Amino acid sequence: MRIAFIGLGSMGAGMAANLIKGGHEVTVWNRTAAVAEPLVAQGATLAATAAGAAQGAEVVHNMLANDAAVREVILGSVLDALPAGAIHVNHATISVALAEELARTHDARGIGFVSAPVFGRPEVAAAGNLNIIASGKPAHVAAVQPLLELLAAKVWPMGDDPVRAAVVKIGGNFLIGAAIESMAEASALTRAHGVSAADFLEVMQGTLFSAPVYKIYGGMIAEDRYEPAGFKLSLGFKDVGLARAAAEARRVPMPVASVLHDALLESLGRGDGDIDWAGLARVAAARAHLKG
Amino acid sequence: MRIAFIGLGSMGAGMAANLIKGGHEVTVWNRTAAVAEPLVAQGATLAATAAGAAQGAEVVHNMLANDAAVREVILGSVLDALPAGAIHVNHATISVALAEELARTHDARGIGFVSAPVFGRPEVAAAGNLNIIASGKPAHVAAVQPLLELLAAKVWPMGDDPVRAAVVKIGGNFLIGAAIESMAEASALTRAHGVSAADFLEVMQGTLFSAPVYKIYGGMIAEDRYEPAGFKLSLGFKDVGLARAAAEARRVPMPVASVLHDALLESLGRGDGDIDWAGLARVAAARAHLKG
Amino acid sequence: MRIAFIGLGSMGAGMAANLIKGGHEVTVWNRTAAVAEPLVAQGATLAATAAGAAQGAEVVHNMLANDAAVREVILGSVLDALPAGAIHVNHATISVALAEELARTHDARGIGFVSAPVFGRPEVAAAGNLNIIASGKPAHVAAVQPLLELLAAKVWPMGDDPVRAAVVKIGGNFLIGAAIESMAEASALTRAHGVSAADFLEVMQGTLFSAPVYKIYGGMIAEDRYEPAGFKLSLGFKDVGLARAAAEARRVPMPVASVLHDALLESLGRGDGDIDWAGLARVAAARAHLKG
Amino acid sequence: MRIAFIGLGSMGAGMAANLIKGGHEVTVWNRTAAVAEPLVAQGATLAATAAGAAQGAEVVHNMLANDAAVREVILGSVLDALPAGAIHVNHATISVALAEELARTHDARGIGFVSAPVFGRPEVAAAGNLNIIASGKPAHVAAVQPLLELLAAKVWPMGDDPVRAAVVKIGGNFLIGAAIESMAEASALTRAHGVSAADFLEVMQGTLFSAPVYKIYGGMIAEDRYEPAGFKLSLGFKDVGLARAAAEARRVPMPVASVLHDALLESLGRGDGDIDWAGLARVAAARAHLKG
Repeated sequence: MRIAFIGLGSMGAGMAANLIKGGHEVTVWNRTAAVAEPLVAQGATLAATAAGAAQGAEVVHNMLANDAAVREVILGSVLDALPAGAIHVNHATISVALAEELARTHDARGIGFVSAPVFGRPEVAAAGNLNIIASGKPAHVAAVQPLLELLAAKVWPMGDDPVRAAVVKIGGNFLIGAAIESMAEASALTRAHGVSAADFLEVMQGTLFSAPVYKIYGGMIAEDRYEPAGFKLSLGFKDVGLARAAAEARRVPMPVASVLHDALLESLGRGDGDIDWAGLARVAAARAHLKG
Repeated sequence: MRIAFIGLGSMGAGMAANLIKGGHEVTVWNRTAAVAEPLVAQGATLAATAAGAAQGAEVVHNMLANDAAVREVILGSVLDALPAGAIHVNHATISVALAEELARTHDARGIGFVSAPVFGRPEVAAAGNLNIIASGKPAHVAAVQPLLELLAAKVWPMGDDPVRAAVVKIGGNFLIGAAIESMAEASALTRAHGVSAADFLEVMQGTLFSAPVYKIYGGMIAEDRYEPAGFKLSLGFKDVGLARAAAEARRVPMPVASVLHDALLESLGRGDGDIDWAGLARVAAARAHLKG
Repeated sequence: MRIAFIGLGSMGAGMAANLIKGGHEVTVWNRTAAVAEPLVAQGATLAATAAGAAQGAEVVHNMLANDAAVREVILGSVLDALPAGAIHVNHATISVALAEELARTHDARGIGFVSAPVFGRPEVAAAGNLNIIASGKPAHVAAVQPLLELLAAKVWPMGDDPVRAAVVKIGGNFLIGAAIESMAEASALTRAHGVSAADFLEVMQGTLFSAPVYKIYGGMIAEDRYEPAGFKLSLGFKDVGLARAAAEARRVPMPVASVLHDALLESLGRGDGDIDWAGLARVAAARAHLKG
Repeated sequence: MRIAFIGLGSMGAGMAANLIKGGHEVTVWNRTAAVAEPLVAQGATLAATAAGAAQGAEVVHNMLANDAAVREVILGSVLDALPAGAIHVNHATISVALAEELARTHDARGIGFVSAPVFGRPEVAAAGNLNIIASGKPAHVAAVQPLLELLAAKVWPMGDDPVRAAVVKIGGNFLIGAAIESMAEASALTRAHGVSAADFLEVMQGTLFSAPVYKIYGGMIAEDRYEPAGFKLSLGFKDVGLARAAAEARRVPMPVASVLHDALLESLGRGDGDIDWAGLARVAAARAHLKG
């Protein structure tokens, strides 16, 4: 297929590479073109503009940073360039409100829209082992299913409303943040009674909480080492904001999200925006007057 | 060894049975004697009083319900009946304050004290597959290690201070409660946007949260079915109270524990004390005005 | 002076009338013109558009509903119509971000900007007894001071940065909301122990809390009567949102604002958006399973 | 009347003096006898023990520090020493649970019990201008009414159940703490936007919040000066604990009380237990990374 891939950050680059490896004709675009070089070496075509990448594409994927970037690049230029009948696959974590708006806008233009946010870190994306949540009209999802399978260990179908995949992704990221804050508080408690975070979390990970989230983030808290960041605290703050906005829109009180928001705000105020969001544990420790 | 086992509830009965199967001479006691019958059939001796069970025992285990029961039975009679040199193994989830008091009291009497709280539900206890956190003086822990291994899939050594195992257990139960409340809020969010708790939680359990806590409690939330209770909400409330008391003693602010406390209080007010504590999800749903 | 007054809701109408009574030449505009009739009868000129009202004005006041209205009407048309050297006085409760933007925009156009939000209900506005917080360049504030005094029992000077008056208003409204939520929780507590909200709040208002906020809102809670609304719950929700946005911008954790947000959200979900925001007390009572 | 007054701290001493001035025969007792000297100079008799003070008294007042002291002194000795038909008036802030227990115990002994907690600082007590909340059997309240009037600017009758006055006092102290925390958060917000706490709180106290609580505690926050303490933060923590215990007993979720608890815990961890509880404002400022 003729594919455009927009947004080649640490996630997008690996995903685009997997589409190339899958035998597809891939045109790429990124705000800073330099990062596209390895992909060009693998056979991709580099477009000068996002619209240029989209022209003539059957499917355009995007892995942009946030609502603002999707709004600017997709609504601002890509959508106009796409031929009728093309399909847009959004992998970015975006707000429920934007997902609704994209669904309406695409529909009005005769462009297919598949909401396909992903779970996984850059190395998982590179290995083609993401978990992808996919929702959209059945024909559109079916058409891009082979592409999603090149990117994912598993594709989780989530029905025909693009909002559905978006809210599952948002809910999942909230759940990660809540697990971090909970580990942070529990570790502050055990530390105050003489048990290190490492000793406590080792038991948890070895028993009831033997899941990737607790291993990855718990491991960082155990070592009190949050760099290099797998997922920056400032991005976590943004994603908790997406959960809170989605909750506000439907009148869903989420007190743990409020606690998380306040703790992340305190973290950002410390200057911790660029460390991994497991670094939220520093706030719980500081509030308990424990040494770093 | 000559062992006394005090407290034969749904957890204790299975544990005592495993000690009998291990070839030990086990005397048992329970407030209501009838539950001891199957153990007597397996070879246990039934004592008329807790003190009677303790007389002549080398090791006395207890699996009593809470601080009040441990205080009454152990401090009130068992301790006086135990011969010097005997070892008391506490499996109950008790407060940090009581663990400290037991350590001091036993020490003054020349009785060994091993703090050995357990993670696992009744069927896990019956299968001898508990996770046991053990702390106490090395000689005491070593002496009862073979007994603990009859009860556990794994024994997690936690050092020489009995408080340490107690606080790990308390921290672990808080972490379970926090996971339940987080799933409850996240599910209310996705439901309000058209994704059922079952659809959402299936993705979570299948990806980043593939751990027993999320499977067991998430499974109940997905089905909105909280009976029969694996662990009663009223007991969860008690255990969150132990975390909050331990936090208060060392000046550790735990805002998620506060949220959990307020939600559990609202659950108890609904009359949900006897359902499983995953039933906390009903409060998040009610606050969001979602149908049950 | 030649004055334009934009926005003639329940607050603005009384304020405009006081400027007319003060002997000024007042042109008015409102989205729905009918409400201007009594003012025209008192001597005001009715303009067909906001821009029309602004043409030739020395000072333009606005009492619009929110950021969106100020943005549309003032930035969208009034600013272009105002002659250089004119002064714009904003009485609306707006975000800190918009106050900053208005200050910059006006400055670039050579228009004066005075931030002058008000405390007081419609009857207080009509009586010319508002409390007005005023900040802006000293020359601009001095120029409109006689006008503000026609509207206010007291003008509180707040320095030369327009943001300052805006944040004081926002902080004040948060403080009102926090007082309501606190009374709601305290009354739920006393009611659960047999003391009615009326009996409890009478003591509070008669002793340590003898202030208008506790009398007005406490009075409604005591009677459990929230209609007619003095200030709608949905507006309170908007204003708490302004506090939270201002807090987020400067990394200020405000856990009570988070509690307030979650409670207001639950109120809105009940369908209580149009009752007075003292009606928040219904949520505290419902959570405690007290009868309404 | 023959009166015993037990507990001569900064509040009790002034109260006892007013009973002496009222022409009553007052016998006093305090754990440390030295503080009684000025009262003896005014005509009081000093008893060697609390029981000694109570012997032959028609009415015994106590102004002890907390539940533990009331339990030890009143239940432990005074009650046995009182003649049948005597009346005990409790002025201390005690738990709802202890108020219930005292009511039962006194009733069984034929001793009257009046629950009469007070609002007011030491200088107010000395001036006989307290606000006293009084509940108990009508005959008992009527009998001590003249004594209460010697102590109070106003006596607020609260019905015949001693628990009622206790919960009003507890609810009132929670409301004070909530006002402090709310002012603390609001001031952090305005400070972060360039408005000092003093400038902000002056407006609040001058307008909607013109009540003693906002003047007294707001004044301290405005000056960031919390010594000498009018009411110690550690006592505030104790009283918020009474509110939370009363709430727990009746299943009343109080999220603002939870926020207050967590903030006070963080204050205590800073070592601020002995400053005035307005000093809670330091925590809000520290969380926002504002300079002290």
